[in-house]
Amino acid sequence: MNESLVISVDAMGGDHGPSVVAPGIALAAKQLPGVRFLVHGDERLLAPEFAKRAVLQACAEIRHTDTMVASDEKPAQALRRSKGTSMWNAVECVKSGEACAAVSAGNTGALMAISKLQLRMSVDIERPPLVASWPTACGVTTVLDVGANVDCDAERLVEFAILGEAFHRAVHGIARPTVGVLNVGSEDMKGHEEVREAHRILREGRFDLDYRGFVEGDGLTKGVVDVVVTDGFTGNVALKTAEGVAKFVTAELRAALTSTLISKMGALLAQNALRAFRDKMNPDPAAPLLGLNGVVVKSHGGASDKDFAAAIRVAATLARSDYAAEIERNMKKLVVAVGDVAPPAVDGAA
Amino acid sequence: MNESLVISVDAMGGDHGPSVVAPGIALAAKQLPGVRFLVHGDERLLAPEFAKRAVLQACAEIRHTDTMVASDEKPAQALRRSKGTSMWNAVECVKSGEACAAVSAGNTGALMAISKLQLRMSVDIERPPLVASWPTACGVTTVLDVGANVDCDAERLVEFAILGEAFHRAVHGIARPTVGVLNVGSEDMKGHEEVREAHRILREGRFDLDYRGFVEGDGLTKGVVDVVVTDGFTGNVALKTAEGVAKFVTAELRAALTSTLISKMGALLAQNALRAFRDKMNPDPAAPLLGLNGVVVKSHGGASDKDFAAAIRVAATLARSDYAAEIERNMKKLVVAVGDVAPPAVDGAA
Repeated sequence: MNESLVISVDAMGGDHGPSVVAPGIALAAKQLPGVRFLVHGDERLLAPEFAKRAVLQACAEIRHTDTMVASDEKPAQALRRSKGTSMWNAVECVKSGEACAAVSAGNTGALMAISKLQLRMSVDIERPPLVASWPTACGVTTVLDVGANVDCDAERLVEFAILGEAFHRAVHGIARPTVGVLNVGSEDMKGHEEVREAHRILREGRFDLDYRGFVEGDGLTKGVVDVVVTDGFTGNVALKTAEGVAKFVTAELRAALTSTLISKMGALLAQNALRAFRDKMNPDPAAPLLGLNGVVVKSHGGASDKDFAAAIRVAATLARSDYAAEIERNMKKLVVAVGDVAPPAVDGAA
Repeated sequence: MNESLVISVDAMGGDHGPSVVAPGIALAAKQLPGVRFLVHGDERLLAPEFAKRAVLQACAEIRHTDTMVASDEKPAQALRRSKGTSMWNAVECVKSGEACAAVSAGNTGALMAISKLQLRMSVDIERPPLVASWPTACGVTTVLDVGANVDCDAERLVEFAILGEAFHRAVHGIARPTVGVLNVGSEDMKGHEEVREAHRILREGRFDLDYRGFVEGDGLTKGVVDVVVTDGFTGNVALKTAEGVAKFVTAELRAALTSTLISKMGALLAQNALRAFRDKMNPDPAAPLLGLNGVVVKSHGGASDKDFAAAIRVAATLARSDYAAEIERNMKKLVVAVGDVAPPAVDGAA
C-alpha cells in the first residue's frame, strides 16, 4: 500500500538542517518500506549524508537548490523571495502531483504562506489552523487553533472541529473521535457569542461527528474529548501557559529533589522513572497544516532525527487516509447548517 | 495602626462553614492584634466555636442570622433571596461603614452580585474582575481577569491594569509593580484589536504605572512582570489549563516514582522535598473583588483555617492601604488618555 507514496522533504529547515533531516528520512524509510522521498536542499551538504546511508541511496532523490528560507524571516518577506528555495520546491512537488505530502522543519509562518499560495485553502479560513497534540492522562488530545487565526467567528470554530476530527481519526486511528469547544464553563449560556453559536451549530448541525459540548481548560489534560476547538488567541495562550507550567513544575521539582543530600539520593534512585516521565511530557514534534488542498506537515524546529521521522510518518498516514474526502463531506453540511438558521452569515464556506 | 480596623466575616460560606471560619478568625486575630471582627452566621453553630477560643471572645462579636446563600445557587437567584443572609449582612457592614472590609468563602457569583448591588462599582466594569495569584519562579504574579468579564474591550483591559497594579503593591509590598498585557506574541502588531489598543493606551497613556508591554502564556510562570492583564475568557482558560497541567504533571510524576521498587525507595527518601514542592504549587487562597467602593475578599471554598486567616490578612492589608485612592487617580487619567485619541470611545469611564 506504500508503493505509490512519494514524500517531498525540505532538507534545509530546522535548527540543524541536513545533518538531522537526512538521518530522519533514513529512519522513516526503514519504518515505511516502499515510500520514496524527494529531498530538496543543497547537494553539497546532502550528498555526504546520503553517501553514509545506503537506505537513502535506494529510496531518496536529491533535488538541488542553492537557496533556503531563513528561520527568522517574517512570513511576508520570506514569501516574496521564496521561489526556488528548498521549502518552496518541497511544496511545489505536492502541487504538481509528483509527491503526495511535504514535510519541513523550517519557518512556520513561511511554510504556511508558501503552502497557502501554492496549494490554496480548501476551506474558508484565512490560514491553516495550528494543531497541537496535547499529552493527556489517557493519550493525546488534538487542540486547534493554537495560534494561526487570532479572530475566529462561530463558523471558523465549526470548521476547526471538522478538520481536527478528520485529522485525529487519520493519525490516531480512532474511528469516532469526540469533539468539544473550549469555554469557561459547561452550560449552554457560558462564554462569548462565538463559542455559544459554534456550540449551537455543532449540536444541531447534521455533521458526521461526535460533538460532546463545552470543555474547560483543565479538561485539556484530563483528555475528556479527543479534539478541542478554540480560536487561535485562546489556544496559543493555553498552549504556552501549559508549556510554562510544565517547565516550572519540573524545575521546582528538580530544585526540591536536589535540596538535601537525602532527597538527592532519592532522586538518583528514581532517575529512570524521572526520565520516562520527562519523555512523556515532550510535545508531539509534528503539526499538520490543515485545510489545504494537499498534505503539508511542519516538524518542530529543534526536531531530532527521531522527531523528523515521526513527522514523516504523520505525513504518510495523512496522505494514505481518507481525511480530505471526510472533511469535504462535513464542510458541505456546514453550509446547510448555517444556511438554515442565519442566512446572511453564509459567505462562501465550502 | 490596627486599632480602628473592623473586619466583617461571613461565617457560613465555604465547604466547612463555622468549623473552619471560626478557627481561621482566631488565627488571624493573633496575627493582627487590635483588629475587631463582626462574625455573621448561625449563633447555635458559632457560639460553641467561640466558647472554645478565648481570643474570639475578646475581639469578635457574633451577629446572628438564620439564613445563608447556598454554594450551588445561581448568582441571580441567590441575589433575589439574599437579604438577611450571612453573606449579605457581612457586605452590608462595609456599606454602612461599620466594617472596613468583608471576607467570605461562599458562592463567588453571589458574593460578586451582592457586593456590586450594595457597594456599587467604582469603575466602569460590568463586574469585579477575578484575581488570581499565580505562583512563579520568583514569587507571585497577579493575573486578572480570570473569569468574571468574558468580553473585554481595550478600556476594560486598561482598567484591570490599574486595579491589579494597585492591588499588587498593597498586598505584596512592591513599590512599583510591573504590568503586562497577555498576548500571542511580543510585537506591537500581534493579537486582536482589543489587546493592541490596550497596549497603545497603556504605552502612551500617562498612568502612574510601570507598563512593560505584551506577555505570552509562558511568561505567567516565568514571572516576567508582576501584574498580567487579560479578558475573563482567556484568563479563565489559562488558569484552568495551568491547574490541569500542574495536577497532571504531579500525577504522572507520582506514577513514575512508584512504578518500580527502586524508584519507590527514591520517592520515600525524597518525601520531604516533594512535600515542600506540593505546598509551593498550592494556589493563593484569597481573591479580592476589585473595583468596588469597599474591600471584599473571597476566600477559597475549600479553604483551611490557615487559608481563611490568610484571606483576612489580605482584607486587612487592603483596608489599611492607599489602594483605592491610587486607583481613582489613575482612572481619571484613563478618561484623558482615551479622550485624546478616540473621542467617541469615552463612555463614562471614571
